[in-house]
Amino acid sequence: VDSRWLVNGQPTGVDPRDRGLAYGDGLFETMAARAGDIRWLDWHFDRLEEGCRRLQIDAPARSVVERDISALCPTTGDHVVKLIVTRGPGGRGYRPPDATCPTRIVGISSWPDYPASYYTSGIRVQICELRLGQNPALAGLKHLCRLEQVLAQLELRSGDAQQGLLLDTDGRVVSGTSSNVFAVLGAQLVTPSLSRAGVKGVSRRAVLTAARELGIDAQERDLTLPELLAADALFMTNALVGIWPIASIDGQVFDTGATTRRLMRHLGYGYES
Amino acid sequence: VDSRWLVNGQPTGVDPRDRGLAYGDGLFETMAARAGDIRWLDWHFDRLEEGCRRLQIDAPARSVVERDISALCPTTGDHVVKLIVTRGPGGRGYRPPDATCPTRIVGISSWPDYPASYYTSGIRVQICELRLGQNPALAGLKHLCRLEQVLAQLELRSGDAQQGLLLDTDGRVVSGTSSNVFAVLGAQLVTPSLSRAGVKGVSRRAVLTAARELGIDAQERDLTLPELLAADALFMTNALVGIWPIASIDGQVFDTGATTRRLMRHLGYGYES
Repeated sequence: VDSRWLVNGQPTGVDPRDRGLAYGDGLFETMAARAGDIRWLDWHFDRLEEGCRRLQIDAPARSVVERDISALCPTTGDHVVKLIVTRGPGGRGYRPPDATCPTRIVGISSWPDYPASYYTSGIRVQICELRLGQNPALAGLKHLCRLEQVLAQLELRSGDAQQGLLLDTDGRVVSGTSSNVFAVLGAQLVTPSLSRAGVKGVSRRAVLTAARELGIDAQERDLTLPELLAADALFMTNALVGIWPIASIDGQVFDTGATTRRLMRHLGYGYES
Repeated sequence: VDSRWLVNGQPTGVDPRDRGLAYGDGLFETMAARAGDIRWLDWHFDRLEEGCRRLQIDAPARSVVERDISALCPTTGDHVVKLIVTRGPGGRGYRPPDATCPTRIVGISSWPDYPASYYTSGIRVQICELRLGQNPALAGLKHLCRLEQVLAQLELRSGDAQQGLLLDTDGRVVSGTSSNVFAVLGAQLVTPSLSRAGVKGVSRRAVLTAARELGIDAQERDLTLPELLAADALFMTNALVGIWPIASIDGQVFDTGATTRRLMRHLGYGYES
């Protein structure tokens, strides 16, 4: 099966009036399932519920989503589980109806087989020309309005990079096209604060937690491109891949370094394949 | 009938994998139909096709969309016609598949009966706290990523304003929540240039064209909030309502003025009900 979906628990299509489609009025989570168990499931729910709160959408009960996942996800092998929650159908125009009935969509698809070299040697990164707009009201959320990321990915078509590096309109480093970015600067681990743009990744939270457990000084703060390019080592994270060291940015080469390897080992990445 | 829809010409639901839903990866048009004829239809197609070009989506043939509209839209009375074009289903992650098959969705709904006073006395406008992010790559397009507008509309829930006024993150005036804004400044008609944020409305184009026909000096340029609030008269436009004079912004009162009335008369608004 390439992919299977449930819309509010039913194997049907989505209402064409759904506000998720009409206005990007919703949120999503992309999760890694191993033998039917989802890694960091509670943290995915935490982020979803925080997003629902900020967008004033009623979050679905965790138990209901877990039931959908159980109904779809095989109990053997690795799979990708995607959850979309929208404000639901209705309302002509941007104004939501006073009473809305959120839509939940759960989909399962096959696991992408990433080359082992992405873990052992690292990935190639290209700096995207597209700059991310800044909006504190939406920053950090994994909402459905992702055209910036789509346009950034289209830039990568012509090259051989695995991720694009995204800067905001003031030139600050934000993230990868579908990942968060970390820089090892001496004894410090630094990742952008994401208060104006970007998505606060669940794997980013996992790395920050791991750093605390390992006694690594980790900072969330603004990061300029020159600072990033002067780092001792760099890596990118997302919930599917975990941690990928950055081998190069626009041709400038980086070593993986001991801190990245420690974090990978702690979180169990890159030593399995 | 409250609303009727065709998805790629069929009365079915939308594929849950559609990129319009997943990433806001598409565009839309909202159009006014009178007795089955759509006002400014060519200009709606122009904007859609410009958007498709900039997003690298294959635009549907105008004839195919017109066939969908004919199949759904009654030939008597006023209706709202909505067209959504997405990049189509497929691709895990932001990167579009190499070959995509765009989705077209056409929906018809009943005409909103706006009070006559919105035309004769004008509307109340509230300045939104939400600021629009800036992204020249997306500015001007009527793309599906509209969470900013949804959040702005949520701000209006507690007040009695018909439109919100949206500023960008640098405080420049951009637009109404679902309209463009024009200021009469002495002999000049000014509307924001929309090179960094906002949607280039079809009715905005109609007003700029009408101004040219009437010999009114019309400018597209940056506009600050103090400039706007010092205007002799203000109005808002969209493809459904046409032209609404602004009666007040956060309580500051404005007269309609001769220029606004001339444009309304020229375009046939406000003298019918």
